[in-house]
Amino acid sequence: MNIKGQNRIRVAVDAMGGDHAPENQVLGSILAAKERAGSVEVILVGKEIQINEILKNNGGKPRNISVENAEEVISMEDSPADAYKTKPGSSLIVALDLQREKKADATISAGNTGAVLASSTLKLGRIKGISRPAIGSIFPTEKGKCIVFDVGATVDCRPNHLFEYALMGSIYMNYIFGIDKPTVGLLSVGEEKSKGNELTTEAYKLLENSNLNFIGNVEGSDILKGKTNVVVCDGFVGNIVLKFAESVLSLLKNRFKSYSEQGFFKKIWIGMFYGTLKKVIKDFDYEEYGGIPLLGLNGVSVIGHGKSSPLAMKNMIFKAEDTVRAGINNKIESALNNKII
Amino acid sequence: MNIKGQNRIRVAVDAMGGDHAPENQVLGSILAAKERAGSVEVILVGKEIQINEILKNNGGKPRNISVENAEEVISMEDSPADAYKTKPGSSLIVALDLQREKKADATISAGNTGAVLASSTLKLGRIKGISRPAIGSIFPTEKGKCIVFDVGATVDCRPNHLFEYALMGSIYMNYIFGIDKPTVGLLSVGEEKSKGNELTTEAYKLLENSNLNFIGNVEGSDILKGKTNVVVCDGFVGNIVLKFAESVLSLLKNRFKSYSEQGFFKKIWIGMFYGTLKKVIKDFDYEEYGGIPLLGLNGVSVIGHGKSSPLAMKNMIFKAEDTVRAGINNKIESALNNKII
Repeated sequence: MNIKGQNRIRVAVDAMGGDHAPENQVLGSILAAKERAGSVEVILVGKEIQINEILKNNGGKPRNISVENAEEVISMEDSPADAYKTKPGSSLIVALDLQREKKADATISAGNTGAVLASSTLKLGRIKGISRPAIGSIFPTEKGKCIVFDVGATVDCRPNHLFEYALMGSIYMNYIFGIDKPTVGLLSVGEEKSKGNELTTEAYKLLENSNLNFIGNVEGSDILKGKTNVVVCDGFVGNIVLKFAESVLSLLKNRFKSYSEQGFFKKIWIGMFYGTLKKVIKDFDYEEYGGIPLLGLNGVSVIGHGKSSPLAMKNMIFKAEDTVRAGINNKIESALNNKII
Repeated sequence: MNIKGQNRIRVAVDAMGGDHAPENQVLGSILAAKERAGSVEVILVGKEIQINEILKNNGGKPRNISVENAEEVISMEDSPADAYKTKPGSSLIVALDLQREKKADATISAGNTGAVLASSTLKLGRIKGISRPAIGSIFPTEKGKCIVFDVGATVDCRPNHLFEYALMGSIYMNYIFGIDKPTVGLLSVGEEKSKGNELTTEAYKLLENSNLNFIGNVEGSDILKGKTNVVVCDGFVGNIVLKFAESVLSLLKNRFKSYSEQGFFKKIWIGMFYGTLKKVIKDFDYEEYGGIPLLGLNGVSVIGHGKSSPLAMKNMIFKAEDTVRAGINNKIESALNNKII
């Protein structure tokens, strides 16, 4: 199928997944459908009555939005591994089924991350040659952006998993962010080849002998410095670093607040201060990135933050379209099979 | 030996270790010797002529400072594992030898961290029952402070190592920071007991069955939230999180700078802004903590930041004194042998 030639990319949206679902999911879909009327078709999957009500209250249903009813909802409390079996009629599973049946080209969800990962893997299958799908996360850096793979899909990795992450991350940064020959760094405890744990010292050898643009080990401090475009690590380390990073702003906010409670003028000053801080660090804003990619699947599945706003949902739909049009999966498969990487 | 009854605690200072050695090391020692004239004795170990010159230029040698000559210097480039063999006459090794020979009660160094760790372990030996010494790091939190163990001593840990870190961290937070029954959290990717990698799920069982105040798994975001007093993880993860944390301020500084280059008034505004930021986040300042503890040794060894200022060196000397007087090592040994923890 020549995706590039296809008029509209069909994105199935899990309308019930997310802290503010279905409101934000529907509003974001309206934004996306209007802004990319010629290139995107949105299929809102979830409780039809609720979805139609929100559409009606917000100017009606755009022509490139359709609604697919699904009465069940996977909650944050549902077991990721079992959700696809226990709730086959849920919005997430129905949205994935649409893609499996070629009625959609991509699926996006801001729901239970573990369930999106497990169900996407089971419903779409893996790319030939990829052992484990991986979740990437975009980090802002002093020089722009980098992607960290994996941030939670696989907590006990083998060296070849890290190699696959490096390959997928390179292709993603190349085709989605337009970076030519992205650099790859292996997250470790020192720059020297000998520094690291058993996993990374083995993975180092694989990366060193590949055609990837491998620059060697990078340290925890090199992520934000922007030393490399792709940072590779196991999902245990990546998840901890990601969550730690997300909590830094919360700590700063908290400190500003307690500092400002010391007086009226200080309060005003801190208000201005915080406003500036927000501008300065807007790149930390996940909304801009439009979700995090789940790579290695025979299909396109984009995971969003539970708190996704309408803007974040819109950008997730765009990210899904871009990923489909770029043919990322075919490129990963070719790279693996033809050893062109 | 009844340390509490001993008049002065003798701290051997590696005067040649650190980016600004011996200048900052000597100045910090003078500050410490004066401020705690009755309780501390400092032995400056290093190039005698240089040290005496700095002492002379700064009001002369206080009565509770002595100098021990050592002509060799371990640099940041020296192999940590070999330094004690190749440079037996170096300031670090001589300072450790003084402790080994009971001529000093503690050693402090802001030099090559790996060399301090390896040489301290070899020269002082381990506490009976402790498999690996561990390096802790103090993190500021929304509620105060917490300690993260291990941040780099052992990159491939076994479950019992994590248990030992929990025990040592609890004793340290209790006796050095005065926290009664410190809470212990196991750093992982989710709160549930089942979440984690092979290492943490096994360590969970050990911690759960101990008498430690174990609160279960904590996530990357819980460190700065201050959810627990002691955070336990393997040295690979801890080192990456520590270095990542240190780089956050550098990223913010960099952003402020590029933001301020947009105009004159903005420049002034950012100057004020940055001043406030510094006040608000002063707890991130390692100088206040006086070095990071290296626990599990038959002796006291405190590691400092390479950039240690005179103030940081002073606080490291105080931290060494406090650790000796608190009898941390005896408490760890008793806890392990009598299972009182």
